Amino acid sequence: MSANTVSVLGLGAMGSAVAARLRETGHATTVWNRTAAKSEPHVQAGAQAAATVAEAVRASDTVIVVLLDHASVREHLDQVAADLKGRTVVNLVTTTPNQARETAAWAAEHGIAYVDGAIMAVPAMIGGPAARLLYSGDRPAFDAVRPVLETLGAAEYTGEDPGLASLKDMALLSAMDLMFLGYVQAIAMMRTVGVPAADTAKETEAWLAAMLPSGRHLAAIVDGGTYDTGGQSVDFDRFGIRSLIAASREQGVRADLLEPHQKLLEELAATGHGDSDWPRVIERLTIH
Amino acid sequence: MSANTVSVLGLGAMGSAVAARLRETGHATTVWNRTAAKSEPHVQAGAQAAATVAEAVRASDTVIVVLLDHASVREHLDQVAADLKGRTVVNLVTTTPNQARETAAWAAEHGIAYVDGAIMAVPAMIGGPAARLLYSGDRPAFDAVRPVLETLGAAEYTGEDPGLASLKDMALLSAMDLMFLGYVQAIAMMRTVGVPAADTAKETEAWLAAMLPSGRHLAAIVDGGTYDTGGQSVDFDRFGIRSLIAASREQGVRADLLEPHQKLLEELAATGHGDSDWPRVIERLTIH
Ligand SMILES: NC(=O)c1ccc[n+]([C@@H]2O[C@H](COP(=O)([O-])OP(=O)(O)OC[C@H]3O[C@@H](n4cnc5c(N)ncnc54)[C@H](OP(=O)(O)O)[C@@H]3O)[C@@H](O)[C@H]2O)c1
Ligand SMILES: NC(=O)c1ccc[n+]([C@@H]2O[C@H](COP(=O)([O-])OP(=O)(O)OC[C@H]3O[C@@H](n4cnc5c(N)ncnc54)[C@H](OP(=O)(O)O)[C@@H]3O)[C@@H](O)[C@H]2O)c1
Repeated sequence: MSANTVSVLGLGAMGSAVAARLRETGHATTVWNRTAAKSEPHVQAGAQAAATVAEAVRASDTVIVVLLDHASVREHLDQVAADLKGRTVVNLVTTTPNQARETAAWAAEHGIAYVDGAIMAVPAMIGGPAARLLYSGDRPAFDAVRPVLETLGAAEYTGEDPGLASLKDMALLSAMDLMFLGYVQAIAMMRTVGVPAADTAKETEAWLAAMLPSGRHLAAIVDGGTYDTGGQSVDFDRFGIRSLIAASREQGVRADLLEPHQKLLEELAATGHGDSDWPRVIERLTIH
Repeated sequence: MSANTVSVLGLGAMGSAVAARLRETGHATTVWNRTAAKSEPHVQAGAQAAATVAEAVRASDTVIVVLLDHASVREHLDQVAADLKGRTVVNLVTTTPNQARETAAWAAEHGIAYVDGAIMAVPAMIGGPAARLLYSGDRPAFDAVRPVLETLGAAEYTGEDPGLASLKDMALLSAMDLMFLGYVQAIAMMRTVGVPAADTAKETEAWLAAMLPSGRHLAAIVDGGTYDTGGQSVDFDRFGIRSLIAASREQGVRADLLEPHQKLLEELAATGHGDSDWPRVIERLTIH
């Protein structure tokens, strides 16, 4: 066992990409997967297969977890807490920030160094120039294991709070999700007059690319905190969103995706903020 | 009165920019505004001010309308239907597609050539290289007035259906709206751990720019229509969106903006489409 030994738990699409990359970059790699057959190609390429999670854990200094979800992590790690003592767990499974914090607390209790990770990439990107992974939690443990992690993609440490990598991941994924729903809404509206989705997507892509930098302006208003810059107001925006919703429904497209924005603006107007800059909606989102 | 004469009804932020640009590009420009004082700077710069809508209409071949909304358009144009006969109305007011169609039908009844427009620009952009305006309705009327319209910004004819310019405008604005809400959601989540909005916006901008081209892939799936490419499924996405919603709420941020996506996915799952590609949500949006 050397500092160069790594065990990977989970050989799904992502775990396989991670294990393959580690092996290819010269790490002594041990793999474990619930369905053992998935280990075979890795063994043929030079990895060790472990028959049990305990065996996998004991084989390496660093244990990288790429199971499905938080439940599967807790199910398997609880059993091997004693074996993990003194080792470093890097948990790349997608979890909520609180789930990451819960696993970190469990690890601390058992003397296990814990780094939580979030993968801003698909499996095919692992090891390539576009791969980026976020990490949070135990800083010395991260620094020690960083050379290994850098082989997977750019490794960005976000802070000691083990929930931070997850939180940032989820914040960026939320923004992406809403952007893709924007495409869906536009495509749905234009399909009612026979415009192919590809044409609308092309137009939308160019339009959104031009509008994307305005996010900085929005952020400046939020950071300013006074919402009185005289830009687009809540009342102006209420009028605009009402038109969008009416246009969508007229064409036979449900306006569900647009309605929450209207609701937040109406809440602001009802609490006397009709004249405020519209980004004040963020105050309605945040529960005090 | 020559083909070079244009009257502008409405001198708000947008109408003023339009009137100024027309004047600067050598058009004999007549202006009318409900609040007469707003005409003064235009008169000083060489425009004619009309005391009434009827006077404004009679002064020019082309009447460009930049009032506030559909109600203000109908309020003022109805009175001057007889004066407008044989002239061309270009309506740049933001309306729903059906409101544009209604005004077009009214114009046809009264022998008025009608072009509906939508301005994909803010006032400061008018006449500049980034200004783009969409038009629909009477094609010969559009072609005749096009040289005038091109002075305002790139003039794009979208089709004979007078609702098309509006519809495309509203589709693109809907996509933009959802993208900006993506920023708001991400900023709200990261503010719970003290990250300034500017920092989150910068990260979000880079991330969304990288993800933007995936809209083409989404569109290809929608145009394909089988939703069986084996890409990200409804069930996969349900799991993902549940995590995003949980993460948001854990941090004390309402998940209202994300909930409609979840609802649409649950509807698809409940109707047996859990295995479909997730862009099938577009079928739930479209009322048959
Ligand atoms: N794929 C991506 O694009 C991507 C991107 C970013 C993050 N991630 C994250 O990476 C993690 C793995 O994703 P994936 O794409 O590899 O998923 P996947 O292809 O569905 O593989 C899931 C893996 O988890 C294992 N597993 C599931 N439930 C288990 C349980 N109860 N006990 C033990 N093992 C269990 C599976 O084992 P069996 O083979 O025995 O079923 C398999 O190895 C997830 O948290 C995902 O959110 C994925
Ligand atoms: N500003 C933009 O960035 C932008 C971008 C794209 C499209 N548009 C569209 O352009 C149109 C004009 O917008 P704007 O920015 O110029 O708005 P604005 O600055 O608020 O000006 C509104 C104009 O409409 C007039 N008006 C309102 N109600 C009226 C009524 N009942 N009768 C007569 N006149 C009335 C106002 O006259 P008074 O001076 O007498 O109040 C003023 O001239 C809107 O449809 C808007 O959606 C604007």
